[in-house]
Amino acid sequence: MTRMTARPENVHQAQLLRLLRDDGPRSRAELGDVVRLSRSKLAVEIDRLVELGLVEPAGLAASRGGRRSSIVRLSSRLRVVGIDIGATSIDVAVTNGELEILGHVSMPCNVRQGPDVVLEKALELLGKLRGEGLVEDVHGAGIGVPGPVSFREGMPVVPPIMPGWDRFPVREVISQRLGCPVLVDNDVNIMALGEVHAGLARSVDDFLLVKIGTGVGCGIVVGGAVYRGMSGSAGDIGHIRVDEDGPTCVCGNVGCLEAYFSGAALARDATAAARSGRSAFLAERLEQAGELTAVDVAAAVAAGDTAAVRLVREGGRRVGQVLAGLISFFNPGLVVIAGGVAGLGHMLLAEIRSVVYRRSPPLATGNLPIVLSELEDTAGVIGATRLISDHMFAAT
Amino acid sequence: MTRMTARPENVHQAQLLRLLRDDGPRSRAELGDVVRLSRSKLAVEIDRLVELGLVEPAGLAASRGGRRSSIVRLSSRLRVVGIDIGATSIDVAVTNGELEILGHVSMPCNVRQGPDVVLEKALELLGKLRGEGLVEDVHGAGIGVPGPVSFREGMPVVPPIMPGWDRFPVREVISQRLGCPVLVDNDVNIMALGEVHAGLARSVDDFLLVKIGTGVGCGIVVGGAVYRGMSGSAGDIGHIRVDEDGPTCVCGNVGCLEAYFSGAALARDATAAARSGRSAFLAERLEQAGELTAVDVAAAVAAGDTAAVRLVREGGRRVGQVLAGLISFFNPGLVVIAGGVAGLGHMLLAEIRSVVYRRSPPLATGNLPIVLSELEDTAGVIGATRLISDHMFAAT
Repeated sequence: MTRMTARPENVHQAQLLRLLRDDGPRSRAELGDVVRLSRSKLAVEIDRLVELGLVEPAGLAASRGGRRSSIVRLSSRLRVVGIDIGATSIDVAVTNGELEILGHVSMPCNVRQGPDVVLEKALELLGKLRGEGLVEDVHGAGIGVPGPVSFREGMPVVPPIMPGWDRFPVREVISQRLGCPVLVDNDVNIMALGEVHAGLARSVDDFLLVKIGTGVGCGIVVGGAVYRGMSGSAGDIGHIRVDEDGPTCVCGNVGCLEAYFSGAALARDATAAARSGRSAFLAERLEQAGELTAVDVAAAVAAGDTAAVRLVREGGRRVGQVLAGLISFFNPGLVVIAGGVAGLGHMLLAEIRSVVYRRSPPLATGNLPIVLSELEDTAGVIGATRLISDHMFAAT
Repeated sequence: MTRMTARPENVHQAQLLRLLRDDGPRSRAELGDVVRLSRSKLAVEIDRLVELGLVEPAGLAASRGGRRSSIVRLSSRLRVVGIDIGATSIDVAVTNGELEILGHVSMPCNVRQGPDVVLEKALELLGKLRGEGLVEDVHGAGIGVPGPVSFREGMPVVPPIMPGWDRFPVREVISQRLGCPVLVDNDVNIMALGEVHAGLARSVDDFLLVKIGTGVGCGIVVGGAVYRGMSGSAGDIGHIRVDEDGPTCVCGNVGCLEAYFSGAALARDATAAARSGRSAFLAERLEQAGELTAVDVAAAVAAGDTAAVRLVREGGRRVGQVLAGLISFFNPGLVVIAGGVAGLGHMLLAEIRSVVYRRSPPLATGNLPIVLSELEDTAGVIGATRLISDHMFAAT
């Protein structure tokens, strides 16, 4: 549909594009301060980026004592699309080159409907943004899916909750439909990139994003980039054993973190508390709604329900136990907790922190913030645009 | 004492030097095949490296159909020193630019004697190698120490088994004495680099080296470089909790991996088995030597002593338990087991593997070798030379 966009031709052009993306419009003099190029070579590279249609002039800067330097910015025509496919919803956002959200739409959608239906719905949502005049040409798109992905091949691989998606060529299909570069990754990795770009991890090189949703996963960022491991399964922490005995997990092992604490485990335990008479609050919600979720537990905690408080404390302790080990090992600069269960908020956080600070070495926890994500539902779509933008703005 | 060595002036020169280091002498034509430079630019960079005294001509290559290309190699005058300070020994080796060991000497030495005594002994050992005519000018030295290090500052930081070393400026002192660049890191990280350079990890980007000595530590390599974490404590896995209850550790917590299985724990448990009458074999060795170490346990295992076998199996299970979690998280391409306790060999390895393969996700363990180091006592010194060599051969 659209012409393939130009790519930077060398590392200097790539660096300039990323600077303009992350810091916004800059004068040529300011760019000269951070790029290791002679003034004349810098001018050549910037002029070339303008020729390629990636950068455009944006007026004159205030004088720094001499001739006023001209300001440049990323082309205002650049459009990047982020698609975040969750277990039960799709989010689609379109951004400018600086990855600022221009429009964001979402709809409920069960990923179990398979790739044909779900991807068509994602494209419909994008069509809606087109209809609002927010996007014509798409220059790149990033896609997150709720399961393991072969990043190299751009497809899900044996994803447990995505029947029909195994080895479906998501990248190829969407790239052909949109006529632009596309990258696919799992939802936790793109959330981590969202935190790198727009969240609390902006200034941190090495950090962990722990997503506690239906399952539990971890995004690992090393030197500002996602670390995927040998076969792309890095961060798969939901099945780390927290106890020798313990509940049986869907994976067949016993004592997995997810079997102790996750959206699914919480719903199971809350239902048990309601049925056994340990929580009148939860019993009432169960009767009204027919099922319980993390939202009900959060409400019960807010109402001072003892059984709910115990569930959250116990869950936080288990997460903290696993995190303590990972922090000893990885010594991150920041840990961000995200996902639906993170909505349990500060009581969960307090319990996690208490275990980690007690169990990890002081050298690793001395300056370690453990915080809740502040991005709410935008981490995924922003991270998806960041994923493809890093690719678009890399030297060929 | 010696003139500071020239450093590469740009990324191309740095790349050429690393190629010649890792692959040995190469013809200009062969270098042209792997370096992204025009023929004329490549010639300029190689000639400049010869001028700087870092590279020298080494004859003519066989014809590839046209004019015979001239071979170049790293200057045969380059000398790199690796110093591996252990808890109870010092190893010093000198290598050529390719990091091939030309001479290697060691002596018993207790690190508790403090930096003045220990570093003087290390320099004496280097003097011995000088006396043998193996080294004149030293162009770089890497040093490993048995404790946490601030890599940036080049000094140990609150190292538990190194009284007197806290914030002692090891890098500065040795750099002044030798008149060359020096880098300092902890012993586990330099062993990991030894595996990268000369061991089983040569062709693996991301791997873990687990050292089970007096304590337990882990070297983490990401993309061929040591990952140190936010405050340099990455890989500090000895105090990860393996059980809610369990023996009290020197760190004050209970249930730490080190308290279950390490050289120290093994000595403790073997002594208990000897004294309680559970092992006649160990009782006899204890009576003869007055104390027991991992070597005695290995001998007991070889003799079929049931109590010793149980100790090793139980220890392997605990290590495997921690490793299973780390492998789920990090998805490495290889795990190398090293250190004194690794001398327990294949029985230990079998037990570790059995737990990991049962507990980690198939995607992470499908192609994951877990092996014993084959470098024996050279991993540390080679890794130390690799550490400083990577620095010497980086673009300034």
